[in-house]
Amino acid sequence: MYLKKTILITNDDGITAPGIRALVEAVQGLAEIIVVAPDRPQSGMGHAITIGEPLRMNEVDIFDGIKAYQTSGTPADCVKLAKSIVLHRKPDLCISGINHGSNASINILYSGTMSAAMEAALEGIPAIGFSLLDFSHHADFSLAKKVAHTLSKKVLEDGLPLHSLLNVNIPKCSIEEHKGMKICKQGNGSWNENFDTRKDPRGVAYHWMVGSFVHKDEDADSDINVLAQNYTSIVPIQYDLTHYKLKEQLINTWSDLLS
Amino acid sequence: MYLKKTILITNDDGITAPGIRALVEAVQGLAEIIVVAPDRPQSGMGHAITIGEPLRMNEVDIFDGIKAYQTSGTPADCVKLAKSIVLHRKPDLCISGINHGSNASINILYSGTMSAAMEAALEGIPAIGFSLLDFSHHADFSLAKKVAHTLSKKVLEDGLPLHSLLNVNIPKCSIEEHKGMKICKQGNGSWNENFDTRKDPRGVAYHWMVGSFVHKDEDADSDINVLAQNYTSIVPIQYDLTHYKLKEQLINTWSDLLS
Repeated sequence: MYLKKTILITNDDGITAPGIRALVEAVQGLAEIIVVAPDRPQSGMGHAITIGEPLRMNEVDIFDGIKAYQTSGTPADCVKLAKSIVLHRKPDLCISGINHGSNASINILYSGTMSAAMEAALEGIPAIGFSLLDFSHHADFSLAKKVAHTLSKKVLEDGLPLHSLLNVNIPKCSIEEHKGMKICKQGNGSWNENFDTRKDPRGVAYHWMVGSFVHKDEDADSDINVLAQNYTSIVPIQYDLTHYKLKEQLINTWSDLLS
Repeated sequence: MYLKKTILITNDDGITAPGIRALVEAVQGLAEIIVVAPDRPQSGMGHAITIGEPLRMNEVDIFDGIKAYQTSGTPADCVKLAKSIVLHRKPDLCISGINHGSNASINILYSGTMSAAMEAALEGIPAIGFSLLDFSHHADFSLAKKVAHTLSKKVLEDGLPLHSLLNVNIPKCSIEEHKGMKICKQGNGSWNENFDTRKDPRGVAYHWMVGSFVHKDEDADSDINVLAQNYTSIVPIQYDLTHYKLKEQLINTWSDLLS
């Protein structure tokens, strides 16, 4: 008996975002597709999960012929709901996005798109997060769709090592300008934040976060660097955050404090 | 001239939680203390930041003689606000907690407590997150305070390598039962989730997330294992999520796809 494979699609820009529609279109025909995504934008949600309140989920009919559900939860919640309530099993692949804006470098840490993919990886599901370096609602997803199709097909066929995932960022350029794909490392950088403080009509202060990203990585194989040259960056990701070098160092230098 | 050092304290259980009061008491006298913490519980917020709405912040007088501010933001927002609006510079140490409940193993990925510490590390501030393995509002913080005092003093004096932080979890036991502190690695585990589905008074379904943690790590030096033996676990943390081994592997095996 031939068992058709299943792809779970989610995102953090919300189920009505152009990016998730582009992702559905990109993988149509590769497998059975199920969409479970937030009912509103969740950008910047990091790896949030909803524990203090219950979740709502309802079926929607916005992708022609494809089963889709919107939920009140975060992207990570959507993966849990999809597995436990919609599919009652693990999908063969979870893809998240296509995010409107970069999740390269340290932006992965704040990313709802990547947290959904990481949640899937935690549960043993091969996962990929896709992001396009264009915030515009009217962004051109042609190249991103081509990349998403190629990589989803590859991972559906070959899998990924258990508990790993891919962070894929696509440059803002045409298919013709695109130089290809490169396997990279997470670039180094930081946000230079500031706040734009204003007064509300009652004279009480409120603060808008504003910031600019500062790229600190000079290594040629960082995602930031290959993206700047119109390559797609593919960073293989794992989630053991242990700083092993510092671990050994502290075992030696802090011996007076330790048991 | 003697410049007194500054410790920034935040948490994810909210500024009125017993855990943050215990942390303030634990480090009093070590340095000047500033508290900037969420005005309500933010557990499970992961590394969320607030970008779609402005933030509120106001001074509160609930810690005797200590400058404290509550904000409408997430734990990571609090670190940004503290640096940019309250201190106008980096503190010498950022400590987060004491969290009511474990952030050992993969729980670090969902943890607002640890996301605040990670935000500080991203900005180059030495940082420690403290968590007590006791969810109770009436938990005994005696041991946790002792541990927090010792480690905060140590890091204030010696610092940590740039962009690193510590994930400290304290077992639920008395000072007498405590065996000491161990430098560990992040344990392996997963949440076995399910949803408790109910009907609201209008007959519409809603879903409560319920789950149990499954420990998968047999290594003696994992945080989960040392905590089970009444040791405090100290996991040095970094945030480069690159899976370097898989990176090399994919460069070889995916050569047909790559440029």
